[in-house]
Amino acid sequence: MNTFILLFECHDQQGIVAKISALIFKYGGNIITADQYSSDVTSGHFFLRIEFFLDDRRTSKETLQEKLAPIAKKFKAQCAIYQKTKRMNAGILVSEPGHCLAEILYLWKTGELAMNIPFIISNFSGHQELAKQYKIPFYFIKATKENRREDELLKIIGGKTDFLILARYMLILSKNFLSSYKKDIINVHHGFLPSFKGMNPYQQALDKGVKIIGATSHFVTEGLDEGPIIAQAVEHVSHTDNLQSLIRKGKTLEKKVLVEAVHNYIDYRIIKYRNKTIVFSL
Amino acid sequence: MNTFILLFECHDQQGIVAKISALIFKYGGNIITADQYSSDVTSGHFFLRIEFFLDDRRTSKETLQEKLAPIAKKFKAQCAIYQKTKRMNAGILVSEPGHCLAEILYLWKTGELAMNIPFIISNFSGHQELAKQYKIPFYFIKATKENRREDELLKIIGGKTDFLILARYMLILSKNFLSSYKKDIINVHHGFLPSFKGMNPYQQALDKGVKIIGATSHFVTEGLDEGPIIAQAVEHVSHTDNLQSLIRKGKTLEKKVLVEAVHNYIDYRIIKYRNKTIVFSL
Amino acid sequence: MNTFILLFECHDQQGIVAKISALIFKYGGNIITADQYSSDVTSGHFFLRIEFFLDDRRTSKETLQEKLAPIAKKFKAQCAIYQKTKRMNAGILVSEPGHCLAEILYLWKTGELAMNIPFIISNFSGHQELAKQYKIPFYFIKATKENRREDELLKIIGGKTDFLILARYMLILSKNFLSSYKKDIINVHHGFLPSFKGMNPYQQALDKGVKIIGATSHFVTEGLDEGPIIAQAVEHVSHTDNLQSLIRKGKTLEKKVLVEAVHNYIDYRIIKYRNKTIVFSL
Amino acid sequence: MNTFILLFECHDQQGIVAKISALIFKYGGNIITADQYSSDVTSGHFFLRIEFFLDDRRTSKETLQEKLAPIAKKFKAQCAIYQKTKRMNAGILVSEPGHCLAEILYLWKTGELAMNIPFIISNFSGHQELAKQYKIPFYFIKATKENRREDELLKIIGGKTDFLILARYMLILSKNFLSSYKKDIINVHHGFLPSFKGMNPYQQALDKGVKIIGATSHFVTEGLDEGPIIAQAVEHVSHTDNLQSLIRKGKTLEKKVLVEAVHNYIDYRIIKYRNKTIVFSL
Repeated sequence: MNTFILLFECHDQQGIVAKISALIFKYGGNIITADQYSSDVTSGHFFLRIEFFLDDRRTSKETLQEKLAPIAKKFKAQCAIYQKTKRMNAGILVSEPGHCLAEILYLWKTGELAMNIPFIISNFSGHQELAKQYKIPFYFIKATKENRREDELLKIIGGKTDFLILARYMLILSKNFLSSYKKDIINVHHGFLPSFKGMNPYQQALDKGVKIIGATSHFVTEGLDEGPIIAQAVEHVSHTDNLQSLIRKGKTLEKKVLVEAVHNYIDYRIIKYRNKTIVFSL
Repeated sequence: MNTFILLFECHDQQGIVAKISALIFKYGGNIITADQYSSDVTSGHFFLRIEFFLDDRRTSKETLQEKLAPIAKKFKAQCAIYQKTKRMNAGILVSEPGHCLAEILYLWKTGELAMNIPFIISNFSGHQELAKQYKIPFYFIKATKENRREDELLKIIGGKTDFLILARYMLILSKNFLSSYKKDIINVHHGFLPSFKGMNPYQQALDKGVKIIGATSHFVTEGLDEGPIIAQAVEHVSHTDNLQSLIRKGKTLEKKVLVEAVHNYIDYRIIKYRNKTIVFSL
Repeated sequence: MNTFILLFECHDQQGIVAKISALIFKYGGNIITADQYSSDVTSGHFFLRIEFFLDDRRTSKETLQEKLAPIAKKFKAQCAIYQKTKRMNAGILVSEPGHCLAEILYLWKTGELAMNIPFIISNFSGHQELAKQYKIPFYFIKATKENRREDELLKIIGGKTDFLILARYMLILSKNFLSSYKKDIINVHHGFLPSFKGMNPYQQALDKGVKIIGATSHFVTEGLDEGPIIAQAVEHVSHTDNLQSLIRKGKTLEKKVLVEAVHNYIDYRIIKYRNKTIVFSL
Repeated sequence: MNTFILLFECHDQQGIVAKISALIFKYGGNIITADQYSSDVTSGHFFLRIEFFLDDRRTSKETLQEKLAPIAKKFKAQCAIYQKTKRMNAGILVSEPGHCLAEILYLWKTGELAMNIPFIISNFSGHQELAKQYKIPFYFIKATKENRREDELLKIIGGKTDFLILARYMLILSKNFLSSYKKDIINVHHGFLPSFKGMNPYQQALDKGVKIIGATSHFVTEGLDEGPIIAQAVEHVSHTDNLQSLIRKGKTLEKKVLVEAVHNYIDYRIIKYRNKTIVFSL
């Protein structure tokens, strides 16, 4: 028995769940959990995530995919099946500070984030030691605002990743980079989006005198800090907080939302739709 | 078109979702949302809530129930179909203070809690005026610890309710009462269960020096404050808080968890299972 | 014995606390709580709130104020003493919906908000009944975006208030109104400022796909939803939330932050400073 | 200029703040922040924490202490002055899992926890590598429930520490150990105390069906998980959570409350009083 995840997405119509669950049943699969969501009750878009056991010595994933194809075609759906135990490859880009990097590496080491990390790229050489401890290839690329050296980044990335994690990477990735890389990029922003985009969000929060600060993980798109939001976390602050304490409290939030995003992503729980996300979280 | 809710519960087996969604599809229904949960991956209990449109001039609820019966029998399931727009009847029992009562009545009046309130029973006469303003029959039953006058309560309740709400009713309902009434009773406890059961939970919290207080809504069972938990809410407190401020902050939490419980209950989103609840919340 | 509150504010200098507490001590006062805050460690602004008992048959508030004057002068401070039990007068302006109004009136009635409410003004006639139940003068002023009828508002307000509460008043008060009224105005905004200013913040939040919604109470200034923030509250939401559920969840937050603001305001716990607030909350 | 912290504690009386702030003023000190708390308005216990600059080339800490002594005597107070930049020594005891250890070491390395760590003691040898990376002496003491080997622990601890951190140390320290060590010990409990004391709190929470889980940092006393609570944190969970996800979510909470406790402790912000804590947190 193996565990698989099926994602299915189409214009909402009658009979989708019936058809798909019947198919899984027919080929000996047993549904563990099924999450579904319709973006609008009457004329919306439909999203389905099914996690199921399958004896893939009897019915292979490929066979099931073949059988699913006509259903997908009929409903004009996008559809995919993933093997849960097959680890995704997550490349990491990081500047300073390194708290998100350290958190991800620790959780990766202890098995909580079940993925591979083919490399760490940083424009700060200081993370070399940490990378070494975890035995992960480390590339120091001295990228700056003036010279982002994205060709070098892309060369290192090559075909090694399923997605990228920006664990506080402080340079904006260009439109060119995004269209070359094509796959998903998860960023953590140290502010409660859509407030406080861009630089120095904690200073912005301090200047505004907010009583709650936050952090946001989101997919990267061309617009700065404008991509679909995946997770947010907040913490109460008061007039006694200063920039230093906001940064300290914020770091905990940043780690939380980035880990939550990655955790859900590698479990195929996140679907992007029209600059928003559906997150079938545990 | 009308909206219906189907609840289905049985030992987990293959093919349940396929069978039921096919049935709804066959009779012209269209699934709006489907929530399911298995208590244990391999050998657990299975719970399903489906909300669906049905043209009940073509297929009546009763017809669908008939057609569902053999499936339920096959899976040895408990199963029911409810019409969403048919309002449930919620009897209210209340002592002092009256903040939960006031909140429920206001939300009922403005349509947020779509239910009927056939009566308010209180062992405090002070709520008479509020009941009058909302034009709800009010019964002052001077119940005390020594004489709970439960026969009188049961007489008033009669067949008028689908469930009871204890909106801070400070007397324990006896085993006899529970076995006579039989239906669900939702209570709000002004403490973070399982901590601080029974009397004066805020004083208990103050004495213990906790840094977070809470409130809990739960179903009433024989054991005091031991029934299945439906909703909980919390708030940070500090050494500067005194009994008065804990009570003040707690009232907000009590209103929140009681309303959340009632809101989910009248939408058939709560299923009790082995002294726990499954809450398919929005 | 009576309880008094002293507020003191000046450029930070050595010896302030020593001088003031010595003065209170000298005249038989006993400090219950003292809160202080310096906006910047080395060259900042200093804020002090002292709550103290005073036998005002022996030393009157006026006498103490006289004795305090030279100290205030020396430190170039703003300074005031208030009698805690003297209730402030809070005028209420409200449109639709009325949940914040209902909450405030209930808490006022039960004594939790210890203030007077000289009137309720609304551009919706529907709140008349509620006002009547609580025996508060009600004025229906059919103000609209085109004709805000602020002269009529100011005429009703007259000298009856110490501050105004906008309990979801949906019209912007003009610069003229603000400069005529002069005193503090507390507003509740149904969004997490500085995100989602202006109209339909829940729709904005839904469109943006945020994972946390919020509400904000703040002082009114000329800039729309730009005044000093007093309190904020948040709640997690998900892709399953729709506009209706966001509004429902948000109402709880709005009530919370508005009540928190008013509660702290009438206890002289809020000091405005450079478009931010110091809140010496309990 | 140097920064000092004064802690003062006595039966509440008139004139304390006046006297002490006058003294600091007289010797050229400048108060940065002053926090005070009275346990009861009329007849309570009084706590004061003052952080102040002092040119200690002109007035030494010792001189100030001498001058303070008569005031402390007069008020029958406990009193101490600490130099803020003098780092405390924190010994760490840890079993499995190591997430709290890793968090503390990282924050220590980056300077956020400004303290010394003279050693790590563990009954699991696996943490050796981590200790080595951070260049902290590591002692593997194979303590078990049957043989806690506390004499060996005490021998290692020697005079090297100001306090101990139990970063998930799974053995109960005996009465003998506590009376030998005498100083403060900060523990993290992976449950929301006073609920779920002792073993397997996440399993207990799962069995009870709570809708919110928590973690608690507290001082160690003889009673198991009964000591004064320092910090608590919580997170919403639902019926979909299993033991694994509760543990995963709980780890984030455990790290948070333990770091918060240590952070406040090494800044002299925590005062124990009658099995509760006063925490003058930033």
